[in-house]
Amino acid sequence: MQKRPLILVTNDDGITAPGIRTLISVMNEIGDVIVIAPDSPQSGMGHAITLDSTIYCNTINVDEGVQVEYRCSGTPADCVKMAISEIMNKKPDLCVSGINHGSNSSINVIYSGTMSAAVEAGIEGIPAIGFSLLDYSWNADFEHLKKDIKKIALNVLKNGLPEGVVLNVNFPKIEGKEFKGIKICRQARANWVEEFDKRVNPQGKDYYWLTGKFINLDHGEDTDLWALENGYISLVPVTIDLTAHHFIQTLNSWDLK
Amino acid sequence: MQKRPLILVTNDDGITAPGIRTLISVMNEIGDVIVIAPDSPQSGMGHAITLDSTIYCNTINVDEGVQVEYRCSGTPADCVKMAISEIMNKKPDLCVSGINHGSNSSINVIYSGTMSAAVEAGIEGIPAIGFSLLDYSWNADFEHLKKDIKKIALNVLKNGLPEGVVLNVNFPKIEGKEFKGIKICRQARANWVEEFDKRVNPQGKDYYWLTGKFINLDHGEDTDLWALENGYISLVPVTIDLTAHHFIQTLNSWDLK
Repeated sequence: MQKRPLILVTNDDGITAPGIRTLISVMNEIGDVIVIAPDSPQSGMGHAITLDSTIYCNTINVDEGVQVEYRCSGTPADCVKMAISEIMNKKPDLCVSGINHGSNSSINVIYSGTMSAAVEAGIEGIPAIGFSLLDYSWNADFEHLKKDIKKIALNVLKNGLPEGVVLNVNFPKIEGKEFKGIKICRQARANWVEEFDKRVNPQGKDYYWLTGKFINLDHGEDTDLWALENGYISLVPVTIDLTAHHFIQTLNSWDLK
Repeated sequence: MQKRPLILVTNDDGITAPGIRTLISVMNEIGDVIVIAPDSPQSGMGHAITLDSTIYCNTINVDEGVQVEYRCSGTPADCVKMAISEIMNKKPDLCVSGINHGSNSSINVIYSGTMSAAVEAGIEGIPAIGFSLLDYSWNADFEHLKKDIKKIALNVLKNGLPEGVVLNVNFPKIEGKEFKGIKICRQARANWVEEFDKRVNPQGKDYYWLTGKFINLDHGEDTDLWALENGYISLVPVTIDLTAHHFIQTLNSWDLK
């Protein structure tokens, strides 16, 4: 690559989160970085976009890095739309989202604001990667992820990604040990079994908190959950075409005349 | 089927929207209906879930139908979680979402609250269908959709759906003509080209409204956009497994050691 690549960085934990600060510092080593990220936490936002409210977007300096930064009042998907159509005067060569504080493996990809930002970039034809660490704490150690993040980002810049595919990368919590390597995986079959926590407010009205237990239904050794449980970094290619192609032929045999 | 099926109905336009009222009236002909739908419009919510706020859920009577109804302060995905884990004492035989006021064809499936409710039910192992009409007006004519909605729902109750697959059904706006039939399709390649409408608020601060133009990039005649443009009802099977399986082999050849 002759010129330094142009890299868009975003996340869903908000622009001041330690995870995105680490991701920015790695991307500054690779290319010219523009950050457009939510001004407040947006976890669990899925692929929400802002249709009925106004959106604010302003420059901000969070640290001493060379990147240019904007904080945006919208969702992660809004941030990417705003970046591409309003802020950047050319399409970025790469979009990276994260590092998320917490897992986006398996079915969590569907609920994830981090991955929605990457998917939104993918829809716009930009190679994109979401990064997440299986540690929900604000002060998680992100330093030891830098080497592998750089390796994956350089591979994407070199090889490109096919149309309609983005990458979902999760790092296990390894507590001082070494990662066993990067494992290419499929999304594990799993789901959340909800347990609503029902309470009564001071006015005597019932309300709920959404909580739940994560259940792995998949015993395959080619899944992201298996990789993460066994000390590997999981890398799942994620499709933007949601068609269940394998079921089209059967549907054509249904009585829908 | 010996017993009347138990059917969960939800949407993203809110529990009083004409679209869901029509859907409820069709489902009352087929089975025992429980409605749990948002108390306010939730369009563009994607697969958002409520993690940082409380959720309220209360019984309501919107019309004279035999269904049991709850309005919920959460997102469409929250409504389905609430229904299954708190309100219903057994899993429904079918979940239907909509009828959405506006298209959820092509890439819109990703942004759609209507389809996220169906996908959430699919994740929980419940056969699920999202219905949408390509007419954004509140007073759109939903009556002429009833026959085909019933036909599709009865087919799903009879045949079932494979694990991890839900159905996305869109009706074209036909202005008094007849539908040409139901066409099984794949999701068309298309995207929104954003055009942010920049304004200045009374305090002199810039803000934006998200607007955009929908661009069809797909000339196939097997897509939902083609079907809808040609007067057919489109039926796309939607997958919950987002793995881009076709790209796994290539990724294994990358230099990620």
